[in-house]
Amino acid sequence: MPTKVRVGVNGYGVIGKRVADAVRAQPDMEMVGVSDVIADYRVKTAIALDIPVYAVTAEHARQMTAANIPVAGVLPQLLEAVDVVVDCTPAKIGAANLDLYREHRVKAIFQGGEKHALTGHSFVAHANYATAVGRAATRVVSCNTTATVRTLTALKDAALLAKARGVLIRRATDPWESDHSGIMNTILPESRIPSHQGPDAQTVDPDLDVVTMAAKGSHTQNHLHFWTVELARRAGRDEILEALRAMPRIALVRAADGIVAPNSTIELMRDIGRPRGDMYEVALWEDILTVEGTELFYTYTVDNQAIVIPENIDAIRALSGTVTEAADSIRRTDETLGVRQDFGSKVV
Amino acid sequence: MPTKVRVGVNGYGVIGKRVADAVRAQPDMEMVGVSDVIADYRVKTAIALDIPVYAVTAEHARQMTAANIPVAGVLPQLLEAVDVVVDCTPAKIGAANLDLYREHRVKAIFQGGEKHALTGHSFVAHANYATAVGRAATRVVSCNTTATVRTLTALKDAALLAKARGVLIRRATDPWESDHSGIMNTILPESRIPSHQGPDAQTVDPDLDVVTMAAKGSHTQNHLHFWTVELARRAGRDEILEALRAMPRIALVRAADGIVAPNSTIELMRDIGRPRGDMYEVALWEDILTVEGTELFYTYTVDNQAIVIPENIDAIRALSGTVTEAADSIRRTDETLGVRQDFGSKVV
Amino acid sequence: MPTKVRVGVNGYGVIGKRVADAVRAQPDMEMVGVSDVIADYRVKTAIALDIPVYAVTAEHARQMTAANIPVAGVLPQLLEAVDVVVDCTPAKIGAANLDLYREHRVKAIFQGGEKHALTGHSFVAHANYATAVGRAATRVVSCNTTATVRTLTALKDAALLAKARGVLIRRATDPWESDHSGIMNTILPESRIPSHQGPDAQTVDPDLDVVTMAAKGSHTQNHLHFWTVELARRAGRDEILEALRAMPRIALVRAADGIVAPNSTIELMRDIGRPRGDMYEVALWEDILTVEGTELFYTYTVDNQAIVIPENIDAIRALSGTVTEAADSIRRTDETLGVRQDFGSKVV
Amino acid sequence: MPTKVRVGVNGYGVIGKRVADAVRAQPDMEMVGVSDVIADYRVKTAIALDIPVYAVTAEHARQMTAANIPVAGVLPQLLEAVDVVVDCTPAKIGAANLDLYREHRVKAIFQGGEKHALTGHSFVAHANYATAVGRAATRVVSCNTTATVRTLTALKDAALLAKARGVLIRRATDPWESDHSGIMNTILPESRIPSHQGPDAQTVDPDLDVVTMAAKGSHTQNHLHFWTVELARRAGRDEILEALRAMPRIALVRAADGIVAPNSTIELMRDIGRPRGDMYEVALWEDILTVEGTELFYTYTVDNQAIVIPENIDAIRALSGTVTEAADSIRRTDETLGVRQDFGSKVV
Repeated sequence: MPTKVRVGVNGYGVIGKRVADAVRAQPDMEMVGVSDVIADYRVKTAIALDIPVYAVTAEHARQMTAANIPVAGVLPQLLEAVDVVVDCTPAKIGAANLDLYREHRVKAIFQGGEKHALTGHSFVAHANYATAVGRAATRVVSCNTTATVRTLTALKDAALLAKARGVLIRRATDPWESDHSGIMNTILPESRIPSHQGPDAQTVDPDLDVVTMAAKGSHTQNHLHFWTVELARRAGRDEILEALRAMPRIALVRAADGIVAPNSTIELMRDIGRPRGDMYEVALWEDILTVEGTELFYTYTVDNQAIVIPENIDAIRALSGTVTEAADSIRRTDETLGVRQDFGSKVV
Repeated sequence: MPTKVRVGVNGYGVIGKRVADAVRAQPDMEMVGVSDVIADYRVKTAIALDIPVYAVTAEHARQMTAANIPVAGVLPQLLEAVDVVVDCTPAKIGAANLDLYREHRVKAIFQGGEKHALTGHSFVAHANYATAVGRAATRVVSCNTTATVRTLTALKDAALLAKARGVLIRRATDPWESDHSGIMNTILPESRIPSHQGPDAQTVDPDLDVVTMAAKGSHTQNHLHFWTVELARRAGRDEILEALRAMPRIALVRAADGIVAPNSTIELMRDIGRPRGDMYEVALWEDILTVEGTELFYTYTVDNQAIVIPENIDAIRALSGTVTEAADSIRRTDETLGVRQDFGSKVV
Repeated sequence: MPTKVRVGVNGYGVIGKRVADAVRAQPDMEMVGVSDVIADYRVKTAIALDIPVYAVTAEHARQMTAANIPVAGVLPQLLEAVDVVVDCTPAKIGAANLDLYREHRVKAIFQGGEKHALTGHSFVAHANYATAVGRAATRVVSCNTTATVRTLTALKDAALLAKARGVLIRRATDPWESDHSGIMNTILPESRIPSHQGPDAQTVDPDLDVVTMAAKGSHTQNHLHFWTVELARRAGRDEILEALRAMPRIALVRAADGIVAPNSTIELMRDIGRPRGDMYEVALWEDILTVEGTELFYTYTVDNQAIVIPENIDAIRALSGTVTEAADSIRRTDETLGVRQDFGSKVV
Repeated sequence: MPTKVRVGVNGYGVIGKRVADAVRAQPDMEMVGVSDVIADYRVKTAIALDIPVYAVTAEHARQMTAANIPVAGVLPQLLEAVDVVVDCTPAKIGAANLDLYREHRVKAIFQGGEKHALTGHSFVAHANYATAVGRAATRVVSCNTTATVRTLTALKDAALLAKARGVLIRRATDPWESDHSGIMNTILPESRIPSHQGPDAQTVDPDLDVVTMAAKGSHTQNHLHFWTVELARRAGRDEILEALRAMPRIALVRAADGIVAPNSTIELMRDIGRPRGDMYEVALWEDILTVEGTELFYTYTVDNQAIVIPENIDAIRALSGTVTEAADSIRRTDETLGVRQDFGSKVV
């Protein structure tokens, strides 16, 4: 039996705790520990889940100990014990960690809050797994960009995509936040067009002709994207749906099934027993998608807390080099996480 | 001095009360009375403003009297005393009133909740005032459609418009509503693409090549529209802004001025002393508008409670035939209401 | 081995689906089936969970079959196969079902939306399990009343309670709802003082001296209660906390642990792996609770979707007569559901 | 004719701009100018209203000039030209200004975000106008405290008040804010009981026996207070309502009139033409107020942006010594602002 990839997670927040859960579900990975700087209920739940907790510094270790959190060591010790670290620290902080990871000769995965230039590689499993194999570092792109790349490359793979123009309505803050980070009773447009998500998708696939506009809505979970796509050739609804179904991690939903909005999908995820109610898939409305001439219009919702989790797992395999084929890694990840391609009539 | 047009308003709700205010501000109109079916604070404020209140039926008159509301008569009596009635009853109810208005030989203006077929004419002042002159009835289109027609015809007038694709994020319910008509912590996409606003704009101008997608956001006031426009020819930002400035009732705003979202414009309207904090203009972000090649991208916000008010005033003049030129009526309306074309650096 | 209690659930909504989950977790119960009238994703998830689905009528059965839902039968057939039915139909509808249940000689449990008079018995396990043993029917009181009775009887049991005055800020609608049942950007006070929850608590324990005021807040999950209690005698914080700890299904939390609001507890439940993120406990802030003289002040949060689930399970045992001791049933329920008495420093 | 009191406002934000409006409405006051540090639409509206704008420092003056704002001078120059300055800078900043005001021998009024100790006097007009007459400085207490003092002293004046226990649900942020200062889909209890408002009321009237608990709700305007009052003696509803009616700046409202929540009152203020839609009064529900034995229960809503405005105007008269009788100043203020004592059946 091959040795398991030893994984550490730096930053046990919204993304980090989900990566840790997903790593523990992989037979070919070992969850060595998580590191953080806080000492409240969030880190305590790691202890409750039997995940070793490291402090980023000795000072943080003292604070954790004072809060009755058993500390397994400090971050450098964690880095010595792992093959890959998944950096889930807040945006911009990750960049400062890169040198530390290099020093410990640990492969490093960053999140979408960091710039592409940090690692020179931006990752979406289906789109460019191969170019990440064996690399020292990559960046899993943000939730919005991941969803954008999944759906647009599905169309591109079927030679359907000429250009895509998107409007992305983002959730304003995460549901657990109480610390005055929200917006209230308004909708806040990005002050620049194009918004950054279009160019960001091009860091994964430079051939995508994509422009995005974005706003934050007054809700706390899930994004909603609207796309107007100029097709490369005439195609019917069926052919387009076929192309979308061929892409892993896009799941079709139907308003006619009562799934009418992002909060319906959140309820559905809880109903089918997903851990934390997470949805790893882009949930795309089959019965709203419309083709008119050579134009395609569709909308989908994205669980901003969960969609990048399978990509992080694949990135671990790619960097560690233990799996060289994208399809192989994606299949393993999706089986362990229960990822689906339809939330509907025949499947639920 | 010419006789004033005598106006009645049927339905003293969100739109009706604003139409009544605006009519009272016109030197060439006389506000004869409003009629309604309720007997609470909303109708009582009409009394406080010295507007005669009629009951729709004798039964409603009894209920109003019981609530200490002095009743001037019933709806048929109001209709006998006016030249034009503005029907501001809830969507679908207006249609049932058309025969009554005809019977009393009163010109009738309906709102956007009614179908185009009801009157066979849908109205936006700049776009088609001339065809409404002398008609028996017209329909002032909805807030979303009014804003769509204003901006797209501005581009069309300058021979800039090839086609337009819009995403419209609507407010979910009105700010005064407490009766469980809202959505909470989600965003609710229309279950059909195209949404009805695109075809509705074509009832005003059939030449517009326009497709819309829409959703309701978790906020109570103002819509936010995003547009991707294929230009008919290459044009720079300045020429496009020139075209928008040439259209009345579009006012430019700037994020750099601190006006960053719909709620900023609401605050601004209160600050500059607008009655009820109303904004009659489409507030379009000059510094967000972007041209790339032959594509134009922009976003604006629409006060769903107020934007149709000047159109209703113009429609009164058009139907009554007292003013035959669109520009003449628009100028009168906009002067009395203080409508502006810029909310910004030099003007505020 | 004793025969299992055979249970049916009529109404597979917010409460019904949770009761079904909880019944399936009980070694001494058999989940025979659920019945409903809808044919969308909500019922389809029952199928995904291998729960037999019955239609309320033959007409509903036809609609379900048309939506590809395998139908096990109609409600009367379900009733023939069970010992106890848990009625989780919408408020007021349950009442109409009582005769049907009697006709099939099935014990029946109703929810808090029904009136006390329907069954003549209102149930909170710790407070009055004994009087429900062997009864034909009972009513598990609402989420707000259940929390009120749990905390006040904890104080009463320790001879600490003189009188209690509460302000209950309720969630406005459930998180899955998209059908315009919410309130937006306001807080809606009940139009009557006392609100119904105080008298409702007295249907469980007539000796409670309790008055409540209530409002709905602009959020979708969890209630927040504030209490001012006149103590029956002087007592310190420690004694009071001891009394609260002695009551099952009250769990202490601490703001100092980062658990600062209802949404913190929702995140915590997801973090510790609770199914659907459910919290069965009253989460009471230990470090906010204050004693001044003979007055006690405290606040807690209530998961309105989950708090009554353990009570329903106990009510099944009480009506069926299989367990005669409250403490015995409560212990079994709480062990299977993982109910806790502290979410904090030492325990998480 | 007596000389007018010359007034400056330092800080042209939510409170400052309203104070400036109110000062301009007083025949016995002269609005000399406002000073601020920002250069966006908020200050530009002062220019639009013909209010002289001063910059706090020369550096701010340069920034304003660059933004096309005509600058009348800097703060010290404004202070030389006024008798009284109303400090409406953000909480905690005001304290640093006191020395500057003293240096210029200007009377100074601070807002509720500052500590009582800063001036040694906390002001609510009806409660303690006399003790402010001629003082160098005072603090107008916060919106929540102002409302608390108004209602409790109304009861105290009628010898009805023994003790009062309140739950205050505050708005989370102001409606114009877009800069991520809000909370979303939750309700956030203060982490301390008693909350600060009770003790703060005692800085105005030390004899009040008052304890408060507080939370922030997920809405942007108006607070909602619930009170449980132990009466000093038996009294009926009528006597209590009489006591409340005897207090200026409390206006009765009725749910039966359709005024059912804070957002109803906001709509009503717009309907009756209040500038900015402001409500200066405590709006107390007559038909919800309840007496049981010697306990009184009631609820009211407070416009957090406007309620302190009349108090600031009175404080100007008190400090300047131009009016020595509270009743005289209150009458003048309330007449100019149109303050009312009933929003209801007979009066609207």
